[in-house]
Amino acid sequence: MSSSHPTIVIIGGVAGGASAAARARRHSEQSHIILIERGPDVSFANCGLPYHIGGEIADRADLAVQTPDSLRQLLNLDVRTLTEAISIDPRARTIRTRRLDTQAEELVSYDKLILSPGAKPLTPPLLGIDDSRVMTLRNLQDTDRIKKAASAAKDILVIGGGFIGLEMAEQLAHLGKSITLIERNPQVLPQLDPAMARPLQQALLDRGVSLIFQDGIAAFEANESRITAVLSSGRKLDADLVILSIGVQPESAVAQTAGLTLGPRGHIVVNAWQQTSEPDIYAVGDVCETADPILNTRVAIALGGPANRQGRTAADHIFLGDKALPYPGSIGTAIVRVFDVSAGITGWSEKRLRQVGQTYQTVTVNAASHASYYPGSETVTLKLLWNPQNGRILGAQAVGKDGIDKRLDVIATAIRGNLTIDDLVHLELAYAPPFGSAKDVINIAGFAASNIRDGLLSPVASLEEAGAQIIDVRPTATASKRPVPGAKNIPLAQLRQRLAEIDPSQPVFVICQMGRTSYFAARILANHGFNAHSILGGAHHQL
Amino acid sequence: MSSSHPTIVIIGGVAGGASAAARARRHSEQSHIILIERGPDVSFANCGLPYHIGGEIADRADLAVQTPDSLRQLLNLDVRTLTEAISIDPRARTIRTRRLDTQAEELVSYDKLILSPGAKPLTPPLLGIDDSRVMTLRNLQDTDRIKKAASAAKDILVIGGGFIGLEMAEQLAHLGKSITLIERNPQVLPQLDPAMARPLQQALLDRGVSLIFQDGIAAFEANESRITAVLSSGRKLDADLVILSIGVQPESAVAQTAGLTLGPRGHIVVNAWQQTSEPDIYAVGDVCETADPILNTRVAIALGGPANRQGRTAADHIFLGDKALPYPGSIGTAIVRVFDVSAGITGWSEKRLRQVGQTYQTVTVNAASHASYYPGSETVTLKLLWNPQNGRILGAQAVGKDGIDKRLDVIATAIRGNLTIDDLVHLELAYAPPFGSAKDVINIAGFAASNIRDGLLSPVASLEEAGAQIIDVRPTATASKRPVPGAKNIPLAQLRQRLAEIDPSQPVFVICQMGRTSYFAARILANHGFNAHSILGGAHHQL
Repeated sequence: MSSSHPTIVIIGGVAGGASAAARARRHSEQSHIILIERGPDVSFANCGLPYHIGGEIADRADLAVQTPDSLRQLLNLDVRTLTEAISIDPRARTIRTRRLDTQAEELVSYDKLILSPGAKPLTPPLLGIDDSRVMTLRNLQDTDRIKKAASAAKDILVIGGGFIGLEMAEQLAHLGKSITLIERNPQVLPQLDPAMARPLQQALLDRGVSLIFQDGIAAFEANESRITAVLSSGRKLDADLVILSIGVQPESAVAQTAGLTLGPRGHIVVNAWQQTSEPDIYAVGDVCETADPILNTRVAIALGGPANRQGRTAADHIFLGDKALPYPGSIGTAIVRVFDVSAGITGWSEKRLRQVGQTYQTVTVNAASHASYYPGSETVTLKLLWNPQNGRILGAQAVGKDGIDKRLDVIATAIRGNLTIDDLVHLELAYAPPFGSAKDVINIAGFAASNIRDGLLSPVASLEEAGAQIIDVRPTATASKRPVPGAKNIPLAQLRQRLAEIDPSQPVFVICQMGRTSYFAARILANHGFNAHSILGGAHHQL
Repeated sequence: MSSSHPTIVIIGGVAGGASAAARARRHSEQSHIILIERGPDVSFANCGLPYHIGGEIADRADLAVQTPDSLRQLLNLDVRTLTEAISIDPRARTIRTRRLDTQAEELVSYDKLILSPGAKPLTPPLLGIDDSRVMTLRNLQDTDRIKKAASAAKDILVIGGGFIGLEMAEQLAHLGKSITLIERNPQVLPQLDPAMARPLQQALLDRGVSLIFQDGIAAFEANESRITAVLSSGRKLDADLVILSIGVQPESAVAQTAGLTLGPRGHIVVNAWQQTSEPDIYAVGDVCETADPILNTRVAIALGGPANRQGRTAADHIFLGDKALPYPGSIGTAIVRVFDVSAGITGWSEKRLRQVGQTYQTVTVNAASHASYYPGSETVTLKLLWNPQNGRILGAQAVGKDGIDKRLDVIATAIRGNLTIDDLVHLELAYAPPFGSAKDVINIAGFAASNIRDGLLSPVASLEEAGAQIIDVRPTATASKRPVPGAKNIPLAQLRQRLAEIDPSQPVFVICQMGRTSYFAARILANHGFNAHSILGGAHHQL
């Protein structure tokens, strides 16, 4: 053992583990770095797996970012695939490994140990779940298995409408399969607030994917050639293949053998340098929990970006000690594409803020993804959440057909910088007609939020929360094409002349197409003494 | 006059003026708001004009965001087009206007005056510049004129390779015209550092646009059917049409009649609420200068985004006083598309930092616009500049075929949040294979910058700055296809075995394709005691 060139053992050779190994090698040519991986592959593109099944990534080899051989060559790693870590002795600084093929066991010594075993798909102990037609997706072998089974399948059930479930539904539908998506929540992508997930649901329905909400899987029954899924409601569905994507659980069993402190859901607890309760043992990626820098709580985020950067952090700490840049926590930025619609989130949702009792204010705005007079723009719907005490941004969600990733990235960066709604007003984003707008949807969200704070905009989140007197200020042609139930149509251009038609003794709720004109109209009404409110997001978001 | 419902006169009805009028109306229904505009149009899409000339925006009506009539209807404005402001008397709070058609003059009183006259294209007093075939682009009438002239033209000269010049060259080339672009700097888009503009130049050359650098326009000579441009070098070029786009100058002549304080280049000086030296007179948009929040200097940014938001700020200040949110200054985020290549900047360039003597550090990195294993990714080249004293970001430039606007927006937001290179390391951006990478180019720029700061990466900005011993660590097949002059090829995978071929008494300069592998190789060499440096941006950026 040498303190400047420690022997480093890494368990798990994909995102976090591979990043840790690479970063450690940059620090030291002399360190013995042992990478232990249960599967046959290392550093594969796990986020790309659904797209190989759907054929968008045609060549399977493209998913192998590195191979055991390339890691040996490029990083001089001691790569041991098909090898499982079965126990850790932190006092002796050893781990026991077992070869999956020969069952040979070995005691491996380390100076520093990095755990990056990931998380495995949840498979609840249901009757029939071991049927070979019930599949989960984690690695290249799962990918091959699903790809083969899907090619012969006609009807496929996807159980779970989270990120993986949605990607699988999209990709399998691309292959022409008949897909039914089952989600126990009343919406897909439960990370989002319900209204923000609606366009994803519409995209699925438009492509013929059947949706079943508020029902879960209870059991599977095999019949001669098909499998029958029995739902909690008693409903039965026949299929040729079932994809189970109801979540993941951390692979922390080995960590338990070392007596490492685990969190409430089994994740390994780490400090800002990814050190576990044993300082010479680090944990990175899906297996660990981390800080939430927004509300100073703890979160577990099973995503590739954090895993990679946590691996880098652990390696830095091994060589630099506490001078290493600490991991600042995860805010949970995530995105999914479902056919032509994309949706994503960064930071906290309204749902989660409510659960923890955090006060918040929210606004939802629509604007064009780039200058609306330039061809090809699409509507971006952006929901912003902030702390009314200090204006700090707590989270955002975006949905639409273009420019969703960009807006999420801007808000994610704003959250990292502790920016407020006032800062969004004046963000100076890149503008030329093919790319953006002089007033980007981000600025407009800032305008709306600060208008709410300053009392210029009195918002109503949904039609359901509006009172009886609803005024639709869209042009009559638009309003009559898709009318707002119970609303009276007074186009904005006529509003000042038709004030007498509005009852000043009752609150007025104004709606338009995109949620901006209704604000303009509500300002006119408020300035004339009405108790006026604008319905957020307009008919585009509400109907 | 009423203090809560002041009479507001706005000079200039496009971006800043129209925004100010709209925002003022939200504050007050009772205020008399007079919008004075010299042209026949208000609130048109001036950034869209080149795209109508090129036919991408087919319908001219799409460029009219608002019309005088719609502003009267929607905002109850007193719109006076074809009317020029000819003088201001700040003591009497009056302006004198003149109708362009009838020459009728009128004295108009105001409580608050907002100047938004914009900037006009520079037209130096050159021989022949008044030839009707020499055109500038500012408004819809110019657009019509150029569109008509272009339809009959074969050869077109575009003089000036800034944003407008590049957009015009692209759009006119779309129309099948033969284009020559003349720029007195040795590069297009002089706002960028030279190497970052190179891909734009290649895109122009690839589409047959001729480029003439380091030459300016000296005179124009008319001959029977064509016009001859005489360049400073004496070179003569015949053309059917000349587009002059060499910059703009603020229209501050009327402001001078009011005795308002002007900056060194004629821009109106304003405070954070856009107040001029006369507190009841505001100035917004291209006519004024503003704060540069990065180095605390003053800048004049002639762009639509700042103009719109400054107009809003002025209106807020009229109604809210100093409680209004101040304008935080402009960092100069800008982007241009030239055929399939986009490039842009936010904050300070290396060139400008050098001019003012600001110490800085810089790195240029390449990475895929989204996961490279997912189809359609393109290389993003990102140049980052930061203050080595505190790590704060001073600016960035990006160029490539995909995802350029997104990266500029993230860095622009990071600058607004005073983020450092360490913060970029851990920005948590939206990642799914169609949208990004687990390690985005932004993170990679942060990695590289912090590696430089921490001594892990010793960069060399260009091949010219490298010493004699250059090692090309690309695979031999790649290296031999487009060799690096003077370099010895030792592929990374063989480097550890071939160290004896490198002279340890001389510095080693490592180059690869994208600038990452060379860093890996330089780490190996440095860890073996070599004085090793990595050439930034790799062959992709350097060759």
